[in-house]
Amino acid sequence: MQSDNCGPDRPAHPGIFPTREAGKSDHEPAERSVDFPVSVVLPAGGTGERTGLQTPKQFCSFLGRPLISYTVQTFERLSWIQSIVVVVAKEHMDLMTDIIQRFQHRKVRVVPGGSTRHRSIWNGVLALGGEAEGEAAAGDRPKVVIIHDAVRPFVEEDFLYKITMAAKEQGAAGAIRPLVSTVIATTAEGYLDHSLERAKYRASEMPQGFTYDVIYQAYQRCTESDFEFGTECLHLALQYCGTNAKLIQGPPTLWKVTYKRDLAAAESIIKDALSQSACIITGGSAHAATLAGALQKAAGALDTELEVIPDLMGENASYLLKEWNFIRVSVNCSCLSEVEALLGDLEAADRALLHPVVVIWVHLSCSGESSISGGKVEPDVLMELASAAKLQNILLYGIQLQQSKEIERWERSVLKVMEITSALIRERSPALVGQLLQA
Amino acid sequence: MQSDNCGPDRPAHPGIFPTREAGKSDHEPAERSVDFPVSVVLPAGGTGERTGLQTPKQFCSFLGRPLISYTVQTFERLSWIQSIVVVVAKEHMDLMTDIIQRFQHRKVRVVPGGSTRHRSIWNGVLALGGEAEGEAAAGDRPKVVIIHDAVRPFVEEDFLYKITMAAKEQGAAGAIRPLVSTVIATTAEGYLDHSLERAKYRASEMPQGFTYDVIYQAYQRCTESDFEFGTECLHLALQYCGTNAKLIQGPPTLWKVTYKRDLAAAESIIKDALSQSACIITGGSAHAATLAGALQKAAGALDTELEVIPDLMGENASYLLKEWNFIRVSVNCSCLSEVEALLGDLEAADRALLHPVVVIWVHLSCSGESSISGGKVEPDVLMELASAAKLQNILLYGIQLQQSKEIERWERSVLKVMEITSALIRERSPALVGQLLQA
Repeated sequence: MQSDNCGPDRPAHPGIFPTREAGKSDHEPAERSVDFPVSVVLPAGGTGERTGLQTPKQFCSFLGRPLISYTVQTFERLSWIQSIVVVVAKEHMDLMTDIIQRFQHRKVRVVPGGSTRHRSIWNGVLALGGEAEGEAAAGDRPKVVIIHDAVRPFVEEDFLYKITMAAKEQGAAGAIRPLVSTVIATTAEGYLDHSLERAKYRASEMPQGFTYDVIYQAYQRCTESDFEFGTECLHLALQYCGTNAKLIQGPPTLWKVTYKRDLAAAESIIKDALSQSACIITGGSAHAATLAGALQKAAGALDTELEVIPDLMGENASYLLKEWNFIRVSVNCSCLSEVEALLGDLEAADRALLHPVVVIWVHLSCSGESSISGGKVEPDVLMELASAAKLQNILLYGIQLQQSKEIERWERSVLKVMEITSALIRERSPALVGQLLQA
Repeated sequence: MQSDNCGPDRPAHPGIFPTREAGKSDHEPAERSVDFPVSVVLPAGGTGERTGLQTPKQFCSFLGRPLISYTVQTFERLSWIQSIVVVVAKEHMDLMTDIIQRFQHRKVRVVPGGSTRHRSIWNGVLALGGEAEGEAAAGDRPKVVIIHDAVRPFVEEDFLYKITMAAKEQGAAGAIRPLVSTVIATTAEGYLDHSLERAKYRASEMPQGFTYDVIYQAYQRCTESDFEFGTECLHLALQYCGTNAKLIQGPPTLWKVTYKRDLAAAESIIKDALSQSACIITGGSAHAATLAGALQKAAGALDTELEVIPDLMGENASYLLKEWNFIRVSVNCSCLSEVEALLGDLEAADRALLHPVVVIWVHLSCSGESSISGGKVEPDVLMELASAAKLQNILLYGIQLQQSKEIERWERSVLKVMEITSALIRERSPALVGQLLQA
């Protein structure tokens, strides 16, 4: 697929919010101040009917992690979000609790859902109000409640902030998007009755925000029929509290994972976000630094950010904490101790908890240099190391190349290393770990 | 991603229509008779604004082929479709003509578009009626005109047939889908006015079908304002011909490639469709047949169809004509002549015109056997062969494994071959061609 890396419907990082980018945000993150309590209700009771899969889509795994965990992470990272209530079907309570433990989510409570979407959201709202614990807990009630779908993992902080502030001011606020298709009314017999004028209507999306009082009253006053057949929280706020919601146009990233094709789209977005940057570790070798420089040049065309560092000591240790992939260059050294050390550092930093990390070991042979520690690389040893690393969610691959004095040949090899590296980082194929590839 | 291979929004093959599958179709292909001329107008003048890409999405490449070519192929394969008019912006006329030549499309004419969607469709309808050539050509006019979007490549024959027959009977017919989001009306100030009752409305999708007379009259009678601001052909048929279109619910496959994430989804659907079957060629060797049998067993769990044949002679030559991938097993033979022969056959059959074909050379070493022709595989030779094959759109990879008498070890190797094979066939990574992988 020919594609750039920053289309309008891709967030900079899934679960990582864009920092100040020119023209991207009205509010710089540092200035964002929310001085009132905000909580989130995530209805996640869906059965995944429309994807045609057995697993409901919020529990489908992307790179080893369920979609719902990405959505939770999106909110959990925001300091101004107090707590998150995930409402799931009773039969998924254990599964959800397990996900929270496995991925070390901290702000989340799991609540059993009702028989319809509105009943589930109502359960979530009640849980936030401390209703289960009696009136004593009323002081903990959030000022604003954000309601979002578990299957819209890519919502960005900036937009959540806008919805939150508008909800506080107006009582209710909701995301809208332009209609993609014309909407038509049909006769009972299945014929066209009339078509709507597209410009006058919008698709109502998530997130939506409400003051606690508005959403609480709306649900307390609404009828059984609303609970049973209603779909739109904004409608309840209008009907039962007289609150006209503020509507805010959201970015395409708000889109909802609905059909099976959306799973592929979501996976692609996550993979793109994880593939944007890699860190080359040279070990201080001049030959490795030359190769790293050449790779940086080649990477420019591929839209990958490549940084070169000698090691992960001191300040460079911070690379372990961010979403980097790693390229470890070893010169004339067929033993894997250098890459083993890197794997140890990554494990110690618990870096592969949320996403698999790609580590590429590049073995550069320079015939001109004394090769006391050199020699042939043993493929079996690399494979064993990779198999062990895979259990830690680290994907290790190898590439070997020969330094050449022929410039054209050398440039071809460098380009090949870069192409292979990009493909490995992008695809993150577990089936290919431990392979030693030729450049 | 955890996924099955046949979700409800994936066609069996892009551009290849499902043959009789239980419960899948009301009409068996053999019985489908369309005894009147049907032609297609494909407006493809879009600028791709919503994907955020420089290339309009109909010209974005998937596995080396522009999306529009997939859509054209979808119609071209149907014997009952007479001709296809693709309407493109003037600046894309040459590009489109080039695409038609390169992918050997036969039923297609390219027509310059107008300034709006309706003007473009009208140009296409006029071209079908032979207006450009004067009244003499009127006899060639189709009875039914199907209008479809260039960016909905996955429409299936069965549904096209339904639209065509309904259009002939009613004068007009269109695809609809349930609404994914609630539709709301907004006030001029950006507040919620009211929400529509979702059950009463539908999204209007493509394809739509019209008798030539209805679509011709509708456009001839409509106003400049309709040409400028209208979006819905069904609406024109109703307003200017009094024809209430028959609305037919289509499958999710009708979806329109709109946002950048849709490009990833489309690519995934195409890759899935191309990855469903592979053919193992044993060369008649008993060792190879044993491995092939073990691979077939392992493939069952991975939802891949694997067939085993000794060679491509006689009836087996028909495998070259279908959408198979190939696995060539060589036993104790490090030379690549066997795989070279396969590449030659594929080129002769022009098999890689529309899609890249994956060929995996599996080199099996059996220590028990005399290895006169055996020896070490030279990675460079494989790489050279793969580089040449890539120019022909054939992606060649190698896997080597050692036969083992230890059952557990052997089973592990077989599973590894299967995992690597599946990953290579699914991903079709051009960066990894020519690599010799270890199982």
